[in-house]
Amino acid sequence: MISFASENYAGVHPAMMEALTNANTGYALPYANDEYTAEAIEGIREVFGHNVEVGFTFNGTGANNYGIAAVTQKYHSVFCSDVAHLYVDESTAPEAFIGCRLYPVKSNVGKIIPEALVSAIKRIGDVHHPQAKVVSLTQPTEYGTVYTVDELRVIKKICTDNNMLLHVDGARLFNAAVFLGLTLKEMITDTGVDILTLGGTKAGMMFGEAVVFFNANNDGSLRYQLKRSMQLASKNRFIAAQFTAILRNNLWHQVANYTNNLAKILVEGIAAIPGVKLAYPVETNAVFLNMSVSVYEKLQPHANFYYWNTEREEVRLMLSFNNTTEDVEQFLTLLKTVVEQ
Amino acid sequence: MISFASENYAGVHPAMMEALTNANTGYALPYANDEYTAEAIEGIREVFGHNVEVGFTFNGTGANNYGIAAVTQKYHSVFCSDVAHLYVDESTAPEAFIGCRLYPVKSNVGKIIPEALVSAIKRIGDVHHPQAKVVSLTQPTEYGTVYTVDELRVIKKICTDNNMLLHVDGARLFNAAVFLGLTLKEMITDTGVDILTLGGTKAGMMFGEAVVFFNANNDGSLRYQLKRSMQLASKNRFIAAQFTAILRNNLWHQVANYTNNLAKILVEGIAAIPGVKLAYPVETNAVFLNMSVSVYEKLQPHANFYYWNTEREEVRLMLSFNNTTEDVEQFLTLLKTVVEQ
Amino acid sequence: MISFASENYAGVHPAMMEALTNANTGYALPYANDEYTAEAIEGIREVFGHNVEVGFTFNGTGANNYGIAAVTQKYHSVFCSDVAHLYVDESTAPEAFIGCRLYPVKSNVGKIIPEALVSAIKRIGDVHHPQAKVVSLTQPTEYGTVYTVDELRVIKKICTDNNMLLHVDGARLFNAAVFLGLTLKEMITDTGVDILTLGGTKAGMMFGEAVVFFNANNDGSLRYQLKRSMQLASKNRFIAAQFTAILRNNLWHQVANYTNNLAKILVEGIAAIPGVKLAYPVETNAVFLNMSVSVYEKLQPHANFYYWNTEREEVRLMLSFNNTTEDVEQFLTLLKTVVEQ
Amino acid sequence: MISFASENYAGVHPAMMEALTNANTGYALPYANDEYTAEAIEGIREVFGHNVEVGFTFNGTGANNYGIAAVTQKYHSVFCSDVAHLYVDESTAPEAFIGCRLYPVKSNVGKIIPEALVSAIKRIGDVHHPQAKVVSLTQPTEYGTVYTVDELRVIKKICTDNNMLLHVDGARLFNAAVFLGLTLKEMITDTGVDILTLGGTKAGMMFGEAVVFFNANNDGSLRYQLKRSMQLASKNRFIAAQFTAILRNNLWHQVANYTNNLAKILVEGIAAIPGVKLAYPVETNAVFLNMSVSVYEKLQPHANFYYWNTEREEVRLMLSFNNTTEDVEQFLTLLKTVVEQ
Repeated sequence: MISFASENYAGVHPAMMEALTNANTGYALPYANDEYTAEAIEGIREVFGHNVEVGFTFNGTGANNYGIAAVTQKYHSVFCSDVAHLYVDESTAPEAFIGCRLYPVKSNVGKIIPEALVSAIKRIGDVHHPQAKVVSLTQPTEYGTVYTVDELRVIKKICTDNNMLLHVDGARLFNAAVFLGLTLKEMITDTGVDILTLGGTKAGMMFGEAVVFFNANNDGSLRYQLKRSMQLASKNRFIAAQFTAILRNNLWHQVANYTNNLAKILVEGIAAIPGVKLAYPVETNAVFLNMSVSVYEKLQPHANFYYWNTEREEVRLMLSFNNTTEDVEQFLTLLKTVVEQ
Repeated sequence: MISFASENYAGVHPAMMEALTNANTGYALPYANDEYTAEAIEGIREVFGHNVEVGFTFNGTGANNYGIAAVTQKYHSVFCSDVAHLYVDESTAPEAFIGCRLYPVKSNVGKIIPEALVSAIKRIGDVHHPQAKVVSLTQPTEYGTVYTVDELRVIKKICTDNNMLLHVDGARLFNAAVFLGLTLKEMITDTGVDILTLGGTKAGMMFGEAVVFFNANNDGSLRYQLKRSMQLASKNRFIAAQFTAILRNNLWHQVANYTNNLAKILVEGIAAIPGVKLAYPVETNAVFLNMSVSVYEKLQPHANFYYWNTEREEVRLMLSFNNTTEDVEQFLTLLKTVVEQ
Repeated sequence: MISFASENYAGVHPAMMEALTNANTGYALPYANDEYTAEAIEGIREVFGHNVEVGFTFNGTGANNYGIAAVTQKYHSVFCSDVAHLYVDESTAPEAFIGCRLYPVKSNVGKIIPEALVSAIKRIGDVHHPQAKVVSLTQPTEYGTVYTVDELRVIKKICTDNNMLLHVDGARLFNAAVFLGLTLKEMITDTGVDILTLGGTKAGMMFGEAVVFFNANNDGSLRYQLKRSMQLASKNRFIAAQFTAILRNNLWHQVANYTNNLAKILVEGIAAIPGVKLAYPVETNAVFLNMSVSVYEKLQPHANFYYWNTEREEVRLMLSFNNTTEDVEQFLTLLKTVVEQ
Repeated sequence: MISFASENYAGVHPAMMEALTNANTGYALPYANDEYTAEAIEGIREVFGHNVEVGFTFNGTGANNYGIAAVTQKYHSVFCSDVAHLYVDESTAPEAFIGCRLYPVKSNVGKIIPEALVSAIKRIGDVHHPQAKVVSLTQPTEYGTVYTVDELRVIKKICTDNNMLLHVDGARLFNAAVFLGLTLKEMITDTGVDILTLGGTKAGMMFGEAVVFFNANNDGSLRYQLKRSMQLASKNRFIAAQFTAILRNNLWHQVANYTNNLAKILVEGIAAIPGVKLAYPVETNAVFLNMSVSVYEKLQPHANFYYWNTEREEVRLMLSFNNTTEDVEQFLTLLKTVVEQ
């Protein structure tokens, strides 16, 4: 059966699996003190700049919560889009580990609307109100759309104007960079991002994310915050080795380009099917369609994907590294048949 | 160089690595809804009994904190030994995630002293004092010693008398069962344990622990607590497959027996070296010796292990699955030479 | 100078001051175990029904957070209006003490819009999303408007349908009951409220609020939750004595009727001033007007009140027990003069 | 009936009651922005030095937790005596609000043993272990004993050596100063205390404590931390007015001197009763005696005080401002009679 459900359904990319096997040699210091970890950090610094600090976590929820907890005080607030993973998909981990208020900001195709952000940031200096400290945006967004560099700069400017920090949840960051045709540094470092969740799992790793701190207070506190987050791996070499593998020779670009392209092929095919419409612009490897429940149910025996929103009648198709053009073509045929019935 | 530093220095046991490779086939439902996870839970139920509930976590800190958080209210307290990993090695994760008071109890060779526990549990019904709810013990202890079944029953009796639950941190549980010559069920289920951290990483997994709930309130809350703990793996099949591998054909027994035996060989060799003394009874795969800093420093270039306690002049040697009898013999020769100098 | 800023600017109502003086006789058991407290609880039970549980707190933030923390688990969510005190005026106390997600719901004149609430409650049973448990509404609202009994029943029905509890922040509850012409029991107990913050301070007390639990699990946990909230007064008799005083002979009705009436007089006077408009219906002791900053600034040397919202150009006038009809008339004259300039 | 149970059983000192009545005049800004609060802060600065910051709270648990939360990060630890109020009498408020580990330190007559403190502070720089940040001591201690200036300096030296801050829980601070014959500044400011809980309630106030920050980072964060603690009083003038009253003309000294003297008279009388022994040195207004349960029970119908510790057979007699020499003499007669039976 075809699966466009999520990159989480896919297993591990062969290059990652090879990296895991290769790293399984002899002893290594635990808790991120090993040479694999040093090498991965060096790799990340080569990509993002040499004065970043890096912490590795097991998963994305851990990365987002660790990254934001590490830069906030107990009376702060965090602004994110009303559809952010942080806001709707991480249970109450933010309350437990960050302890700050999350304030949702109205979004358009998944992107924070700058005017809405500006009017949400309020009552600075008022002791009764949580004090604005972080804006967290998702790049690409939960709908697969991508903030342009100009859009990122607009958000960053709002942060700067309000003495706030910018966090990027980059669970699928590589796909955004490929879409923009930019290096990771151009997209992230140069637009002034302060904290980055650099996703590994959805790009094909077995597990593992990296949190990158730009311009961090180098007071050594980041590593204590990491341990407190319950995300410090004893055998961290196996997270690190995968990051080294994906950054080496721009493998990340190759994988993200591949899945973005599959999405394009899918979109082109859909354009030829009367009555099927895209719900959002397709910019990365996510394709959202408007689809009735009855069509969805007819497709389910043959293709696995999420019915995303019943009110708006949306489905989501995610293209992952182990999808093929055959999967896409087969799905298009199937869809055409069902729609024409 | 020989390493007796920790099982965390060792990589991944070949059978676990094979399980990871084999599990990397096709799609699988994410977040522990897959068939690998169902199989692992079934395996755990075969070992511990059919009405247990199981949650998987990335690491031991996550497992301990998830397991205890899931059964406590905000005004409760947890009693553990004064040398418990939970108390001295998990940063402030217990405060963030459990939110209960940890009260340390005096220990002997790592074991909670029952009389000390009884007198520590106090002021039941007094609103000003955290209310006693959980006893957490480590089996085997942080010193490698093992609670006998009778000792476990004494602690359980204290729990029952005070309407408390018994949690076991079993990061190295398999080694304890081998020492006692008992099945896991005899040691854990039959002594009345309520929550178990079943360690995988130290037994040779790449990552992954299981939390086993006995007699749990089946109100469905355990899985919400798990997600909140930031420990729910998207590709959980890779944790599950390792657990299935280690439980299958009693591989756990073979591995633990092997490392316990290496410790025995080490102890026998040490008995023949005048002036070197065991700090604690050796019952599993941990060997604590009294050793001066100067002897330790002479050994360091050739053998890697921890100087555990400077006040008491103790070192710790942990035997892991990839140590060999040659390692042990080589170390003994080395130690003899250094001591005789 | 006239003050319509807030009941917090007013001091203590003479009857409350007398109660404090009278309670200062001899010894009394501390921590709410005294006879004054028993008497106050009895008084509250006479008003709301005999099977309610009562806890006293120092202030409203303490009451709201204690009340909700006491009935929620760590993975729950709480829904309140987007202008709720709980959401915008209690710093991050909810994150620290409740630990649940607060989800804002769109409001109209301060009241939760039922359709918006229904669509906000979602993903029940989905481990990734905080699980809906409490609706918290403010009666009267932050804009002084009052939910009718029918409106309360609509919200309660949504709670029941979703297995949720209904919390009412009644910082100024008495004013709402007077407006509706109902007893407190008819308005609260009979509409199915589960937890009530019964405000004392704004009604004229020096300090003190009561949290009333209806249909509470009588497992004794409420008092541990209270102590944990740092709100358990050692000399609680002085909170209790004020509650007894305000409930006795329906003093609460007299005070609330008085301040509601002052607001009516103010509204009638304003109707006669061309160009001055009410921003919201005036139902209790709060009067919101649309007013330009320049008019506001001209009034400030003579009358103290808040510029509430700069975007919508709103000011708030709160009538408190120590305002007089003379205050109101004087203010109307002043306003007329300034507006006509 | 005589009551030596606790200052919390006593009501409000007449001078405090008068201050409350006098403060109840006209309007005052809420939330500690009023002139009464400014005056009280000025009064506290005159006593402790002009560069201290002050926050007011409702009660002692609030004060201790606010004061320590305001100066700690999420991965820190706090060391206090094993009998500290913070450790045994504040439920799990420290976990909820401070979020740091509390480590108990062995005490002698209520005082932290310096050598025990030194050996408890460990693993600095080790990510796995909570990082030592605050020592909290109680002056006078829970047993009524008083740290000398030299003893305070020894503890402060340990703090300085370890880059830690010193917090003093001074719920009954005035009694300690009277015993030492020192000004509050000599005892606290000059010994290097960093955060002080300055108790009001036990000294005769209706409610209210002050937290004094010495050498505080003046980044403005203290007031946000205060609001978050749910301890910011809307009508703070009534806390402030009591502090002004007790500090004016050294009323604090007069009250503490009076209760310390009552304790001395009690001790002298006890010396004359054969077979009754002091459990601890009596230095302030607390008198601990060794007493069998049967003697205690015979006294209870006539005199109210706590059976403090059943293991050690200790009772506690607290002398409060509304005890009299007659109370003491009557009790001595009673005790003599019962003991001689």
